[in-house]
Amino acid sequence: MVGVETGEPGEGPLAGLRVVEVSTFVAAPLGGMTLAQLGADVIRVDPIGGAPDHTRWPLAPSGVSLYWTGLNKGKRSLCADLRSPEGRELVTRLITESGPDGGIVLTNATGRSWLSGETLAERRPDLIHLQITGHRDGGAAVDYTVNAAVGFPLVTGPEGHAEPVNHVLPAWDIACGLYAALGILAAERRRRATGEGRLMRVALHDVALAMAGNLGFLAEAQVNGVNRPRLGNHLYGGFGRDFVTRDGHRLMVVALTARHWRDLVEATGIGEAVAALERALNADFSAEGDRYAYREVLAGLVGRWFAEHDLARIEERLRGASFLWSRYRTFTDLVGEGGGELRANPLMAVVDQPGVGPYLAPGSPIAALPDASRTVVRAPVLGEHTGEILRGLGLNEDKIADLRARGVVFAPQEV
Amino acid sequence: MVGVETGEPGEGPLAGLRVVEVSTFVAAPLGGMTLAQLGADVIRVDPIGGAPDHTRWPLAPSGVSLYWTGLNKGKRSLCADLRSPEGRELVTRLITESGPDGGIVLTNATGRSWLSGETLAERRPDLIHLQITGHRDGGAAVDYTVNAAVGFPLVTGPEGHAEPVNHVLPAWDIACGLYAALGILAAERRRRATGEGRLMRVALHDVALAMAGNLGFLAEAQVNGVNRPRLGNHLYGGFGRDFVTRDGHRLMVVALTARHWRDLVEATGIGEAVAALERALNADFSAEGDRYAYREVLAGLVGRWFAEHDLARIEERLRGASFLWSRYRTFTDLVGEGGGELRANPLMAVVDQPGVGPYLAPGSPIAALPDASRTVVRAPVLGEHTGEILRGLGLNEDKIADLRARGVVFAPQEV
Repeated sequence: MVGVETGEPGEGPLAGLRVVEVSTFVAAPLGGMTLAQLGADVIRVDPIGGAPDHTRWPLAPSGVSLYWTGLNKGKRSLCADLRSPEGRELVTRLITESGPDGGIVLTNATGRSWLSGETLAERRPDLIHLQITGHRDGGAAVDYTVNAAVGFPLVTGPEGHAEPVNHVLPAWDIACGLYAALGILAAERRRRATGEGRLMRVALHDVALAMAGNLGFLAEAQVNGVNRPRLGNHLYGGFGRDFVTRDGHRLMVVALTARHWRDLVEATGIGEAVAALERALNADFSAEGDRYAYREVLAGLVGRWFAEHDLARIEERLRGASFLWSRYRTFTDLVGEGGGELRANPLMAVVDQPGVGPYLAPGSPIAALPDASRTVVRAPVLGEHTGEILRGLGLNEDKIADLRARGVVFAPQEV
Repeated sequence: MVGVETGEPGEGPLAGLRVVEVSTFVAAPLGGMTLAQLGADVIRVDPIGGAPDHTRWPLAPSGVSLYWTGLNKGKRSLCADLRSPEGRELVTRLITESGPDGGIVLTNATGRSWLSGETLAERRPDLIHLQITGHRDGGAAVDYTVNAAVGFPLVTGPEGHAEPVNHVLPAWDIACGLYAALGILAAERRRRATGEGRLMRVALHDVALAMAGNLGFLAEAQVNGVNRPRLGNHLYGGFGRDFVTRDGHRLMVVALTARHWRDLVEATGIGEAVAALERALNADFSAEGDRYAYREVLAGLVGRWFAEHDLARIEERLRGASFLWSRYRTFTDLVGEGGGELRANPLMAVVDQPGVGPYLAPGSPIAALPDASRTVVRAPVLGEHTGEILRGLGLNEDKIADLRARGVVFAPQEV
């Protein structure tokens, strides 16, 4: 079932919450969008002409950024001259005069003292202000440089490859944006109980270090003195790898538990060979450590079965198996043939995005049960809500027209 | 400054919140830990002997899992026979009788009807229940198989490489766990306002699809019919790549904006060559599209400068530059020489983990300002809090001793 774009804000568990976002690129926009997709009224504030992410690739044929529209869905847009005292005062009022569920700022802007937590808290003592930075000292960084700094590119990629392999997915930006949304919700819960505001910082580099620590990578180096080797597509500490079918397709296969392994051995018909190996090597492949130690041998056995069968037969044979497997697919595969699988997923809905046209876009992956289509609201165009937001601040039509005429605010058409 | 482990729960903005987590592997444990590190009382419930993640690699020399201890910091542990009606009833009471800030379940267990949202909501109508699954239909999946299914391994890795390159960082698990924490906080905010509970599901596969959509990968394939090429370590749509220094070190360098590019050109002394190229090619490298189109040429120019200088000189020269850069480091580099940089970061604190010893572990990357050391509480040992949790349910010492003796619950020592 394809979800229908309703355009109605204020649904979802965060209805009533008001967040002002002054942001660019991935982490902060994603954090704001995550709150918007849970029902918050998120106002993205941009300078006239847009922030540096407004033209970020990929672009639609019209030149509209598919990246920007993807990361700003469901927000309202206010566009103002952020270098002018008047523009800054409007944004300050938007933040500080926004009722008990407002007074919340999410930003990755640095070096703007008028937008700092300290300055704004003078006008609104219960301010919640979360700033995303590259480094904890406020220094700049991006996903790619943080990733280089924390070790993952040197353990990712083909075995024997000597150079670093950057991930293409901006995983640290994603985690950072979600942490930012979490920090705001946690602070807002506390504010409801105590009336106290909270100033916070989430540094992209800290996010990456925290995850390298949480997942045991740092502990392994500290406690065991071991640097994780580069394993290609093998799963560390267990059994998992990619395999090629007779007709040239690729699958990722993972056996995490003893039951998974038993089922994989049965499905691929290698029981006798595996048992003989266990006896000869004095190994127990029901234990993940032994599966990992002999991963090349086991992959060789498992791989023969995949190489001898076509994908269709394999998919039929593995249906219902306990172990995990999936075909490798391209992005084009996912949207191919009309995007049937995507269309059938209530996560996705068709939105009609100006400059892009109708396309399938995702809502929040947090699904309320019973399962239903999610509301997916398109991204605004720059300044689309400038007029209504200024009216909400009590400005009359003459005043708004005057601000537009003098270039203090921007709206794309009559407001 | 090294943070001090206080072991005091209940600090942080989520103090008072009570979450029962029945989980294994990465996403659900990370979601629970994230809430615990913000001050919630998170009780991880495990079967006797532990869930399948309890022995997950990497392991300390003692056999204790550095992975498990990394992902369960700051929680309390209850260990019970989850196959026995008595054990199940204890966990059910723990969930349903936990006061107005309780009644919250985070789980990735499937197929256990006694733990389902529907069953538990009969005992506690305002239940908040979030289940993490692999697929939306409840089917199993893991980070590696989801990653294969959504396209990233085919755009990651060296240019010209034909095979998929899996990421080693379980990025989807991370995002899924953080979404789960967010879903719980959002639902709890709504419950405070309305008294209503909420049953939710976050599917790992939906998380990956949502991000592929949010970041424009799916839109690019749908709208433009373009499949993103494999770019090695080049940044898509801009200028960024790794470079090698004369003394063999590697750096990642990114110029996102026109100012970044200007500074990079100046720092590397390639101004004349770049200007000549712009004239000859009718290109404007202050525009990111042109920097991307001629990325190989520009990287060739920039790369010469790096290849002609040693790391120390380069670091000196680039200090304070506006563009982004970082050395590639291994995990061992990060913790080397006593982990000086990690020790100086208030994100990290030394915790003394049974079976591991003292090591530097991260707290929450959400920092309250002014900056201070974070509290980092070690992971429990299995069943460490079984006694106190059961006493909290009103059980007396005789009853607890009886439950232990009959194997309904487990505690590692006198409780």
